[in-house]
Formats: sequence, C-alpha cells, structure tokens
Amino acid sequence: MTSQLKGKLVVGQSGGPTPVINASLAGVILAAQQQPAISGIYGLVHGIEGALKEELIDLDRESAETIKLLAQTPASALGSCRHKLKDEEYGQILELFKAHNVRYFVYIGGNDSMDTCHRVAELARSTGYDMRVMGVPKTMDNDLAHTDHCPGYGSAARFLALATRDTGRDLEAMATFDDVTILEALGRNAGWLTASAMLGKQEQDEAPHLVHLPEIPFDEGQFLANVSDIHQRLGCVFVVVSEGIRDAEGRFIGQAEQESDAFGHVVHSLTNGVAAYLTERVRQELGLQARFLRPSLIGRALSASISETDRQEALEVGQQAIIHLAGGQSGHMVTLERRSNNPYRWETGLAELAAVANEEKLVPRDYVNEAGTMPNERFVEYALPLIGGALPPLARLASVPVEKKLNS
Amino acid sequence: MTSQLKGKLVVGQSGGPTPVINASLAGVILAAQQQPAISGIYGLVHGIEGALKEELIDLDRESAETIKLLAQTPASALGSCRHKLKDEEYGQILELFKAHNVRYFVYIGGNDSMDTCHRVAELARSTGYDMRVMGVPKTMDNDLAHTDHCPGYGSAARFLALATRDTGRDLEAMATFDDVTILEALGRNAGWLTASAMLGKQEQDEAPHLVHLPEIPFDEGQFLANVSDIHQRLGCVFVVVSEGIRDAEGRFIGQAEQESDAFGHVVHSLTNGVAAYLTERVRQELGLQARFLRPSLIGRALSASISETDRQEALEVGQQAIIHLAGGQSGHMVTLERRSNNPYRWETGLAELAAVANEEKLVPRDYVNEAGTMPNERFVEYALPLIGGALPPLARLASVPVEKKLNS
Repeated sequence: MTSQLKGKLVVGQSGGPTPVINASLAGVILAAQQQPAISGIYGLVHGIEGALKEELIDLDRESAETIKLLAQTPASALGSCRHKLKDEEYGQILELFKAHNVRYFVYIGGNDSMDTCHRVAELARSTGYDMRVMGVPKTMDNDLAHTDHCPGYGSAARFLALATRDTGRDLEAMATFDDVTILEALGRNAGWLTASAMLGKQEQDEAPHLVHLPEIPFDEGQFLANVSDIHQRLGCVFVVVSEGIRDAEGRFIGQAEQESDAFGHVVHSLTNGVAAYLTERVRQELGLQARFLRPSLIGRALSASISETDRQEALEVGQQAIIHLAGGQSGHMVTLERRSNNPYRWETGLAELAAVANEEKLVPRDYVNEAGTMPNERFVEYALPLIGGALPPLARLASVPVEKKLNS
Repeated sequence: MTSQLKGKLVVGQSGGPTPVINASLAGVILAAQQQPAISGIYGLVHGIEGALKEELIDLDRESAETIKLLAQTPASALGSCRHKLKDEEYGQILELFKAHNVRYFVYIGGNDSMDTCHRVAELARSTGYDMRVMGVPKTMDNDLAHTDHCPGYGSAARFLALATRDTGRDLEAMATFDDVTILEALGRNAGWLTASAMLGKQEQDEAPHLVHLPEIPFDEGQFLANVSDIHQRLGCVFVVVSEGIRDAEGRFIGQAEQESDAFGHVVHSLTNGVAAYLTERVRQELGLQARFLRPSLIGRALSASISETDRQEALEVGQQAIIHLAGGQSGHMVTLERRSNNPYRWETGLAELAAVANEEKLVPRDYVNEAGTMPNERFVEYALPLIGGALPPLARLASVPVEKKLNS
C-alpha cells in the first residue's frame, strides 16, 4: 500500500447514537476535505443498511456551516442501524465499494461495528481490492477494549451526574413528603454509565445513596434493608440502578421475559424495566413513597449537558482516522490514551480492529466499594476528567438555626 | 400601615421545586438586606412545616458567595413541603411570628401556597397583628391565574423542548430499528409543560408527532390509529403525553388506582404511569417496537437546561416582593406581565392573593390544533420567549443522494 491511493471515502455511523457521534463525523469530513487523495466523501444512510441498499449521500455537497453545526448536534445525522451482516452481505458491500471506486472506509461505532469493519478489511485484503479501513470508537457504554475510554461516554455520564445531583436536591427538599427515588440508567452489561451517577456527589449524605452496576450481583433483600436503613437515617433515599442488574444466578431483576437483537443482545424488556419493579417492591415491602425516573434515551441524546472534553475527543478521533488512512494505515481503530489526570491530558493511538472487535470492557471490581453499592475514588479519578471535571457548583446553605422561643 | 414597620422577615418555599425557585429566594434575601426596616431574615425549614415545628434558620448568616450561587441552584434550598394547614394551625403560626417579632412574610409557591399566604394575612389582620404578607409565584405547571406566566415554567419547558428535539433525532437515526418513543411529561391538570415539548420542532416531520394535553379528552383508539398512520408515513413516531391525560369520562388513562395528597390532588399513581401503559398498548395492538421515557423529576430539577429568562424573572419577583412589602403593600402575589413579544419585554405587577388562591389556569383550547394532537402557533408565540427564545440550532444534512451504480 502506498499513501497515494486515490479514491472515494465512505463513512457510516452505527449502533446507538450519542450526543457527540456527529462530532466524529464532522472530524472525518473536515480532515478528508484536506486530503488530495480522497476524491469524494460519501455517507452511508443508516450505516451498513445503506451500503446494502446503495443509499449513499454526497457529503461534499454539505455547507461548511452545516459541518460546523454537526459537531454540536446529537444523534447520528447519517442515520444508524443495528443490522448484523450475514456472511454473503460482506461481498455485496465490497461490490458497492468497487463500483464507486471507494478506497477508504470509516465506520463510527461500538464493538459490533469494529467487527464489521474488521471483516470488510479482511475481505478486501483477501480478494486483492486495495482499500483502507479505519474504525472510530463511539459508545456511551464505554465498554470498548484497548482504548482508555470511548467518545460518547463523557457526555452521557455528565447528563447522569447532573440529573442525579440536581434531582437529589429535589428529593432532599421534598423529604417530608417523598421517600425514595429510583433512577434507571442505560447500560445493560457495563456499569460505566451507571457509576457516573455519583460524579456530582460532594458529601457523604448527598444523592446518590445506592448505585447498582450490572457487574455486581444484585441481592433484593439486602437492597430493601439498605433502603430502609438509609431512609431511617436521612429521611430520603436516592437509588441509581443499571437497566441490566442481575441476581447471583444471572437473571435480570424484575424482567420476566426478554427480547434479543440481531447480535443476540437483549435490547427491549417486555416489562416496564427494573426501576419500576423495584419502586413497587419498596412500596410493598417498606411502605415508603417511591417513584422511578427513566430518562432512557434522553441520557444519550441531550445536547444541553454535553461534556466539552468528550466533544473535543470525538472530533479528534474522527480527524485522526483520516490522517492515519491517508498515511497508509488500515485495519485499526483510533484509540484514546490518557497521559495524565491532573491536568487531564490525552493523545490518540491505534489498536487493531481484530483485537477490539467483540471484546467488552467492564468496570473493575476494585472501582466499587466493598459492599458493591457505590463506586469509589478510583472510579472518580478515572471518570471525572471525561465529563469535563467537576460539575458547576451548587449552593449549600449553612443553615444556622434560630433559637426557639416557643415550647411547642 | 406605615412603610416604617420594623421587624423580622420570614421566607419559605412550598410545593414541588423548580430549577429557579432558589433564584427567587436569592432575590428575596438580596432585596431584604437593603431594607433598614427588616431587622433579620429567617428561613422556614420545609415550608410551613418549619413554622409549626419552629424550625427556622438565620439567612443573614449565609455568605454573599452562597447567596450568589443560590441563584444558580435547582430545588428548594430551604426544604419544601406539601402540608395543608388545619384551621387551628394558622393561629399557631401567628404565635410563632409574634414571638420572633416577624412583621414580613414571603411564601414562594403555587396556588395552594397562595391560599396559605392569604389565610395568614387575613388572620393577622383580623386579630390586629401588624404584619405584611407577599406571595411569590413558583410553579413549573404554569397554572397560576392573574399572572402571564410563572417562574419555574420556562426552565422545565426548556428541558422538555430540548429532550424531545434531541431524543427525536435519536429516534430518527434509529428508525430502521426503533418505531415508537413515548415520553411522559409532568403536569397532571395543566398542559402547559407538555405542550412545550414542541417548542424545538422546526419541521413538520420532526419530533414530536403527537402531543397530548390533560385538557383534551384522550381517545385511545384514535391514538393508536394516529400512531399507525404516522409510522407508515415516517417510519417512526415520537409521542409526548401528559402524566394526567384522561378519557372523555375523566378517568386517568392506564391508571387503575389513585392516591391523593393532603390537598386532595392525585399525586402518585399506583401503576407505572401512562407512558408505560401506552407503550404496552402500541406493542400489543400495532406490533411495533416501542419504549417509554419518564424523566419525571429530572424535568423540574436539571440545572443544565435552565432558561436564563426564567432565572432572571424568578430573581426579580423575589426582589419585588420585598420592595412592595417595604413600600407598605400586603396581601398580594407578585405577577409577571408581558409588555411585548418581539423583542420579549416584561414587567412585574401585583395580584390579590384572594384572587389567585386555588384558581387554576389551563391551556386554552385554541392553543391546540383542531385534532387536539399538537399545540399551534398561538402557543408557540406565548411560550417561546419564556424558554429564552429559539433553542440553539442543530445541523440538518442536505443529504444529496449519490447516483446508484448497481442494480440490486
């Protein structure tokens, strides 16, 4: 391979959107426009589904203003998908690429997408079609291996940290009326996002009081006992649970039936989710007022709580994908490497697609306290820089009591 | 009454918090510190419950930095309550005020709180205790009469407008996989907040596609037919429903049993809410992939989506309450009066507590389209300035198709 390979670039977005996946797309487009070897920039409509249907759009026809705004626009502007390619469909995609003289392929996505990327690259290589492939990491789940963290995570984590802290203040204010709030967080297998709920916690007794990750088996009896204890001590309890918490036998809590997506992942429960279930249990077993919050996709979409660090990183990994492709690299995913925590410094690197594909990075057990109910300082050290550092501070009244004058 | 009445000020917060109720509190404190006649500023802990328990804090002991930060801090910093005073308890409160030489009382809250204010003022007057009382409006429900709008509404509305628009983009991106998203909005009787979901809608086919207010009877059969039609046309459907939609007979949709609060208002349903119910109906009846979002209290707490217009107005009504009290006024609520829409200009005014108390302002029928499924331009004209004007723009790709080269 030379660095002078002339041809078109195809870029696609895959899997669940994030608030900054379009920043990566903007980075790809901006960098590609600087490369003389890239003779055109095409976008896949709804990811790999667009490749199968030959639905491509011409990204060179977008205005500079649109590309700039794209870096601030949540969700996947090209459209996304969860299609798992069948073996014979890889050949179809290669035919499409050949027909349009596509020599560069960038896919922005999570581990399933990196597998797709890897297999496209392998097929091109084994059939002698000169093409370069680069993966761009994207997942608010933060579960990709071989990268310090994933673009999209910082923003989803910042939303959850803000939502927990601010709604925790609401619960505190209403503590003579409301008892228990249970917030259901996205992230079925990896608890990175759920754990971020505590990144706005400044004091021991502030929300959240219990945080349950999918990595740690959930004991309902112990949970109810903990809720009861905390309620007696503080008058209110703020709980954050991953949508995917499981008992010691691996059964999802409060979910009788499951549905699977094309990759065999459970995606939609047929019940109302674990927070609704636990809210009911708290009411029944403890007789407390309880309500559940389920921001669901708002947590991976809201533009108002984007982490600027995350946005910068997302833009940069998009740009670096093109720079590496133009330099002759292929078969890799761009990674984020942490250089220091204080001040937070990072660089990009590369990891082999084959190594990244279908691996999953979970929260280490030693990032959570012994009881398994709260992420600890190790987690904070890891995650706080990714949401852009400490949240804007809130007031906490000193609350100096006035001396009583009545004997009531 | 003279304007030289010397004594202490008591201020309390009541009812559900908003992201800017503390801005009103900060306004009260800052203005009171300028009044020589006010010899001390006490805060009620958990509203009127603090008065019954003689739990007061000395707000003069708070630092200037804390007060400044308070104007940026969501939820009720003094603590709130939903306690409905019994007749005999009003006397108890007056005794407390007398014991501490309290001559000024400001209560920040909704229509129930204005009733409490009014009755305290009446009792003081009828028993000859020289005291001045002022209500400060606060409710994200925006349902207070005799004011153009209510502090707290603009910020809650801005969250919902952002959440709907941004999550709508997410649904659009995933339209080959997800079909229907149903977002449940706060506001059980008044649809002001629910209606605000469409304030970020720029184009006909963007989210939201259906918006159902509690003021307009909900027909489940018609709803399912509408969802089906929109799905066939667009491939995805984004629905926003008030938590309090009712059928033509006034029965809450999807809620078998109800609980009431001390004011006789229904506060907690014993089921999982209307969005969960309708999601299940869409799956069963239409066979579509559906999910529900229930941000619940996040919508009235999140600091990241505050409307700066709302924050300014909340601060100002707090300050004006003190200025009017010091000027000799009593028995009123500070109001917001709109002077012009473009540019948006407002002033404060006064309304009699007796007129405001226990009244409820609903969304006029002519703010909604004929089908009852979408607020119209009249609503936008009313509400858009309150969220601070148009949301920050998002990119929308021109999506010029690439000519096909294969015959697949």
